[in-house]
Amino acid sequence: MSDLIRPRTLKGFRDFLPEAAIPREAVIATALEVYRNYGYSPIDTPVLEYADILLGKGSDETDKQTYRFTDHGGRDVAMRFDLTVPFARFAAQHIGVLGTPFKRYHVGPVWRGENTQRGRYREFVQFDFDIIGTESSLADIETILVAHDVFAALGFERFSVRVNDRRVLNGLLEKFGLDGAAVAVLRALDKLPKVGPDGVRRELAAAGADDAAVAAIMSLVGITGSNREVVTQLREMMADSPTAMAGVEGLHALAEAVAALGIDEARVHIDLSIARGLDYYTGMVFETFLDDLPEIGSCCSGGRYADLASLYTKQRLPGVGGSLGVDRLLAAMDELGLVDGRATWAPVLVTVFDDEGRLHALRLAGELRAAGIGAEVFPDTKRLGAQLKYADRRGHRLVVIAGPDERTAGQVQIKDLAAGTSQSIDEGDFVAAVGAWLEA
Amino acid sequence: MSDLIRPRTLKGFRDFLPEAAIPREAVIATALEVYRNYGYSPIDTPVLEYADILLGKGSDETDKQTYRFTDHGGRDVAMRFDLTVPFARFAAQHIGVLGTPFKRYHVGPVWRGENTQRGRYREFVQFDFDIIGTESSLADIETILVAHDVFAALGFERFSVRVNDRRVLNGLLEKFGLDGAAVAVLRALDKLPKVGPDGVRRELAAAGADDAAVAAIMSLVGITGSNREVVTQLREMMADSPTAMAGVEGLHALAEAVAALGIDEARVHIDLSIARGLDYYTGMVFETFLDDLPEIGSCCSGGRYADLASLYTKQRLPGVGGSLGVDRLLAAMDELGLVDGRATWAPVLVTVFDDEGRLHALRLAGELRAAGIGAEVFPDTKRLGAQLKYADRRGHRLVVIAGPDERTAGQVQIKDLAAGTSQSIDEGDFVAAVGAWLEA
Repeated sequence: MSDLIRPRTLKGFRDFLPEAAIPREAVIATALEVYRNYGYSPIDTPVLEYADILLGKGSDETDKQTYRFTDHGGRDVAMRFDLTVPFARFAAQHIGVLGTPFKRYHVGPVWRGENTQRGRYREFVQFDFDIIGTESSLADIETILVAHDVFAALGFERFSVRVNDRRVLNGLLEKFGLDGAAVAVLRALDKLPKVGPDGVRRELAAAGADDAAVAAIMSLVGITGSNREVVTQLREMMADSPTAMAGVEGLHALAEAVAALGIDEARVHIDLSIARGLDYYTGMVFETFLDDLPEIGSCCSGGRYADLASLYTKQRLPGVGGSLGVDRLLAAMDELGLVDGRATWAPVLVTVFDDEGRLHALRLAGELRAAGIGAEVFPDTKRLGAQLKYADRRGHRLVVIAGPDERTAGQVQIKDLAAGTSQSIDEGDFVAAVGAWLEA
Repeated sequence: MSDLIRPRTLKGFRDFLPEAAIPREAVIATALEVYRNYGYSPIDTPVLEYADILLGKGSDETDKQTYRFTDHGGRDVAMRFDLTVPFARFAAQHIGVLGTPFKRYHVGPVWRGENTQRGRYREFVQFDFDIIGTESSLADIETILVAHDVFAALGFERFSVRVNDRRVLNGLLEKFGLDGAAVAVLRALDKLPKVGPDGVRRELAAAGADDAAVAAIMSLVGITGSNREVVTQLREMMADSPTAMAGVEGLHALAEAVAALGIDEARVHIDLSIARGLDYYTGMVFETFLDDLPEIGSCCSGGRYADLASLYTKQRLPGVGGSLGVDRLLAAMDELGLVDGRATWAPVLVTVFDDEGRLHALRLAGELRAAGIGAEVFPDTKRLGAQLKYADRRGHRLVVIAGPDERTAGQVQIKDLAAGTSQSIDEGDFVAAVGAWLEA
């Protein structure tokens, strides 16, 4: 047996055991329901694409990180490194059939051969949602509402969707003749949490901003207050910039919607320091933070872009959307103690003690399932202690016991593992009793 | 603009537009619920693994079809071509933590560089379920019940899970000294639907069976009748073979369970011609056919195996499970007219006509969502005709209209697109009205 292959995974890749796969399924299902309820529809694209499609607009870093190879047919292919580029290709290819506006969600793994020393994985799940073919600020607002609703539905009490509009800063930069330095300025601002205001000032100067420009930029990102107060200040400060005012009016519309819908301002607020250092975005941008775990970074980010698919089609496709970082969110939930460690979705284990009891156990489990209650039948006729231990380790909440004595009496014993209590119930009443017990 | 990249997918790969992605999500969700309710738990494994892990037991054909390359770190890696091999590696690596019995499901794409001329795709989704660490025939029975419940839950009226036990044939082959020819015999039997009985006889002879053996094998696979009748005949015919009788008793236990649980025998029945030409299986084997579309082949297959992970661990892990062919099933549902072509999960579209109506539309949609009803807000202020056309193309069932007149009157107009009817409702009652309308 020395020729066994050692079971192992690649560096930066990982297995999901049930305790980790269950919360991931739950997070995805929760976001899925929100996306669907807002009218986003699912799409899927291949994991493998022609390399020129995926890398057409890639940076050097993306190029280096992409898994790329030659397939059996001699084609230069690559594994997707995000869901945005495939969506752009998809939209360019199918927009004639899809029509506009088009709202899609897309969930799936992506691959980047990143340096794993930074605690990053080389395979991780993204869950994106976008609406394309419209420039309406209503779509911007809905994007923020989706992010808000996902975090609320996930059960977080304290989170904040922080919203900015790229045009406000652009307007300011225009005033100082810094239009060409926008990306460098954004990258500098992105580092605010890391390097602090003085560090950002140095980076801004390096990007070409003179003292007056640095002061104006720092003054802009330093504006605080309620959403309406921030809008009021911006309207005064930027009145002479049409570019900036377009952004301010977008933020105003969002602030009004948040107020009208009764959403807590602590959960959705304007934050002028949000930069998103990608030149891809052209209007509203947002990031989402967990107030109890800010250091983990944004768990849902996105914004508005002027043209999704210019690499692949002449048809201009403006849009707005966001991306939920499923794995980062799960790491946060784990750290916040929001993951219960159960290894099964089925709340009930039905025990089996003897060959005569097997059909009986199958029937009891079938009755529970018919009532929508997940029930697993222990497959072997082991002693009760072993079956209880199994249920305890898996995280079953109730154990149903129907040995020879119970069957003779026409009864079923229900055992609550956490409470350590048990009760005997007539067979005819046991499904209702289990249902009530689980709801309690 | 001549440097546009032509948007295209690789040969054998495909996009899923919402009309195709929605039924796939529905099929997976239905199977998922059945698996969960039987106590199977989710796992996930990386798409990329070390090539020696994935190809350790591969045939030449598998080797040729596998996407394999050298990664950035010089590692010989490959994309998984099924979910069984990764599960074997996973089980060997983690069984100490997982414990036994262990029930898992696993859904995800797999890749094979197959000849696409046969109508096959190079990327397709499998959805497997297995229980390992037990030799109990109860687990065999549950596997069949899961297959049955999935097809019933999917809404198929006419389907058949056809069950056999590898040991019955093995017992017969032993009698004729044909133990060594088992795989060749199985492959010959697998071709029965394609080449007919005479073709199979020729193949059996080529595999080394003499006339008596051919006659006995054909007589075995020709046995028909109710499950109990087949068991009775097998008991008479195979009484002198302990190997065969072990299989017969497995089939007997299944037949008793099917009868006790009140399952239609047309849906789960013993079929001695089911071979599954893989030497991997050692006991119960099954395939599942749609009676209205038998030519599409088995949509859910599996069986019992003696040892899952012998390539990676000395610990013997017997198990039983099945694999749902999601893509094949979807092709069948499409052909049977069971796919309704909707491009949205949200049943309601809320229209918008003027800037003043935007907040109102957001509020109406929010009220519907709070009641669990998916509602999309049209983002632009286009004329009603354009918005209705959009709803019609997407497959929204109801359109909510709240223009200036309706808002002044405190009313909402609800329009049923299929029926062509509409009704005005007081704002305070409209959520309940929409709910009732959708349920009708």
